[in-house]
Amino acid sequence: MDSSDYQLLNELCEVFAPSGNEIAMKDFIIEYVETNSSSWHTRPELIHGAAFQDCLILKFGKPRTAIFAHLDSIGFTVRYENQLVPIGSPEAETGYELVGQDSMGPIECKLKEDEGYLFYDFGRGIDTGTELVFKCDFRETKNYIQSCYLDNRLGVFSALKVAETLKDGLIVFSCGEEHGGGTVPFLCKFIYEHCHVKQALVSDITWVTEGVLPGKGVVISMRDMSVPRKSYINKIIELAEQSDVPFQIEVERSGGSDGREIQASPYPIDWCFVGAPEDFVHSPDEKVHKKDIEAMIDLYKYLMENL
Amino acid sequence: MDSSDYQLLNELCEVFAPSGNEIAMKDFIIEYVETNSSSWHTRPELIHGAAFQDCLILKFGKPRTAIFAHLDSIGFTVRYENQLVPIGSPEAETGYELVGQDSMGPIECKLKEDEGYLFYDFGRGIDTGTELVFKCDFRETKNYIQSCYLDNRLGVFSALKVAETLKDGLIVFSCGEEHGGGTVPFLCKFIYEHCHVKQALVSDITWVTEGVLPGKGVVISMRDMSVPRKSYINKIIELAEQSDVPFQIEVERSGGSDGREIQASPYPIDWCFVGAPEDFVHSPDEKVHKKDIEAMIDLYKYLMENL
Amino acid sequence: MDSSDYQLLNELCEVFAPSGNEIAMKDFIIEYVETNSSSWHTRPELIHGAAFQDCLILKFGKPRTAIFAHLDSIGFTVRYENQLVPIGSPEAETGYELVGQDSMGPIECKLKEDEGYLFYDFGRGIDTGTELVFKCDFRETKNYIQSCYLDNRLGVFSALKVAETLKDGLIVFSCGEEHGGGTVPFLCKFIYEHCHVKQALVSDITWVTEGVLPGKGVVISMRDMSVPRKSYINKIIELAEQSDVPFQIEVERSGGSDGREIQASPYPIDWCFVGAPEDFVHSPDEKVHKKDIEAMIDLYKYLMENL
Repeated sequence: MDSSDYQLLNELCEVFAPSGNEIAMKDFIIEYVETNSSSWHTRPELIHGAAFQDCLILKFGKPRTAIFAHLDSIGFTVRYENQLVPIGSPEAETGYELVGQDSMGPIECKLKEDEGYLFYDFGRGIDTGTELVFKCDFRETKNYIQSCYLDNRLGVFSALKVAETLKDGLIVFSCGEEHGGGTVPFLCKFIYEHCHVKQALVSDITWVTEGVLPGKGVVISMRDMSVPRKSYINKIIELAEQSDVPFQIEVERSGGSDGREIQASPYPIDWCFVGAPEDFVHSPDEKVHKKDIEAMIDLYKYLMENL
Repeated sequence: MDSSDYQLLNELCEVFAPSGNEIAMKDFIIEYVETNSSSWHTRPELIHGAAFQDCLILKFGKPRTAIFAHLDSIGFTVRYENQLVPIGSPEAETGYELVGQDSMGPIECKLKEDEGYLFYDFGRGIDTGTELVFKCDFRETKNYIQSCYLDNRLGVFSALKVAETLKDGLIVFSCGEEHGGGTVPFLCKFIYEHCHVKQALVSDITWVTEGVLPGKGVVISMRDMSVPRKSYINKIIELAEQSDVPFQIEVERSGGSDGREIQASPYPIDWCFVGAPEDFVHSPDEKVHKKDIEAMIDLYKYLMENL
Repeated sequence: MDSSDYQLLNELCEVFAPSGNEIAMKDFIIEYVETNSSSWHTRPELIHGAAFQDCLILKFGKPRTAIFAHLDSIGFTVRYENQLVPIGSPEAETGYELVGQDSMGPIECKLKEDEGYLFYDFGRGIDTGTELVFKCDFRETKNYIQSCYLDNRLGVFSALKVAETLKDGLIVFSCGEEHGGGTVPFLCKFIYEHCHVKQALVSDITWVTEGVLPGKGVVISMRDMSVPRKSYINKIIELAEQSDVPFQIEVERSGGSDGREIQASPYPIDWCFVGAPEDFVHSPDEKVHKKDIEAMIDLYKYLMENL
């Protein structure tokens, strides 16, 4: 991977798509796939429309496994006066720069936090119901990428890199993950009933902890707040060992992903979280080691071929 | 609307139907529809029975949109001795009057609250498992209606007034909303698979707050604890603007409705909460401005025709 | 029932099957049914495989009602170093004996609790992700059975005793109940769509409380954190009264079972919790009165015939 690859990640991080309003991300990916997929191993079928709300599925060949990558980000909704309420669980520190748009035009303002209550600081009032997101400050160094919304534009980015050589598989771009979900159940219904897919991988970002370190490889999570099926997780770990891609094992008590909704759906689809770890989670300064990004893409390529 | 209309609302508020035990409300509506629908623009098909538990669907013409109105109310279950446990989240103040019935006959007793624990005060013991609800004291003044259970008998009332002129649409009377839900998922399955309906409006009652005032119009909620799809909400607001019906915009961080379960279901159905605001929520003294009731009915009529 | 019957319960309590890893329980039951069902009134069809994950359904004749019994138990997952995180909500006291197995062989170690954090005490490190469960110390006295995991091996045991004489019905062995569930939704889909079953009984263990005492009979729960449909509960209670089996009525505000997921599924399946009460819940010393076990089996036999 070189910096031209990370240019795509930078563009993804700048797309405005808080939970509930992911149309711009869907449109971005559709255009990206239509422009670029002629050079891919397999041109995917694009599945979207009213029955999929703002979600998008790419179908390659004869799928056995689905990659789930959520399109949405955390953010804030303007309440009354200068009040804000969170979308998902954003870090909220006074001084963070926020952007958005309302009936009066574009907005670039600052966040104010006071005893847990959130406000914006701007020269005019903002329409009630307007969403604001972190202003993107994308930083690339020798070893690290740092930006808001690596969670989950990096999961989307990884899926699009995997797409280049993918023969058989689904890439499922979901909505609403940061704030209660709601699209994964109908996406599961589609992939199970129409594509007979029973295996899922959740392409998302996790936390650097005492057991998961930056630069040590992609993370395979054995559990978080949800406990996935052990026999499926074991199969993923066995394949990861065969792949020679650097990886780390995670065991947590909390945290969740699209996996939780896959498990709760009325379809017997196994899931496993596979993704890079980051520091400064849900802040404008999310930071991921490049080696872990490369390992994430490499492991997904191996798993999609061998699972 | 005149007082003869509010007589129907009064009758609805008096029906005994705590979550889990909504048969009386279902039967009331079936009889009401059978008695009155001959004078309506369209006689609806009544859909109910074992596959719908105690829910009821009215089908008019070729539906594009479904109104969801929950039938159940908050209340209390008798535990052991003189203890009560809440059904849903009722206000619970010492002295509130409660009514119900057990194997020994009708009950009219008083609520006692002591450090968060709830008890009844009655001349005899009450059978374990008996449900009690607030005694109805329906009050009409020049500007206001006040009663227990305007949440959600007013949502039901509004739907029945809309029914009078409805050409195409579904009215879905759900159960269990106040206590964990459970019927909306199978109702969604039915309306999506059998009626191909992908648009929902939640006819329920919300809170008077600093941003939502009594007498200022029906409330369109842009979000509560759940974040619905922005493009659908925007469409509702655009139509509301065209309608000339007075309305207010709500943005909250908490609170939920049948909308939460519509969103979580495996069916891609959009939803928006549209309802009057009330004071003294979940108490025997719920209070709604008549102008907001009229605006609620008017906006639903407009939306069901134009959405 | 005599001690030879309780030998089966003892064996069930010793099977290693924490939530997410229930294969050993499934295999145990399949072998038990294949070995023993030739002497049963009806030989059931065994339904399992990839579309059922590690769940198992026994189908007898023409089913009207399904017994749900969860296979999984609470336990612990090894995190990093000597840390443990709970699976479900186990009691956790220093000194409890835990067993499991990792890449280095069998494990028998002790639990350490320190200000809410959990650790293991063992002569070597244990692989991250390894599950540990309570070591089984099965005790039978004149009146009581005491062991870890009576919740829910006793629910499984009762179902297998009922199976001996069952003519028409389903026995559904679910997974993951102790930790967020996830299998009941697809099991409901199957039993509703393929077997047209709309009635469920949850064969699980509840708590001894001020209103539910050991030795006083099987418990019919009118509600816990979920409120099931009153008309269905009333039907169960009427049949219980006709049966002459000793039973007790429970009303609680908290606690949950597979019933919660049956209610939330997109299928209109009624449910009622029917099971023996225990002391020392979720500890290695769960204790149930033999009379309540016998009443549980007897009431299930009656309900499956008459419901």
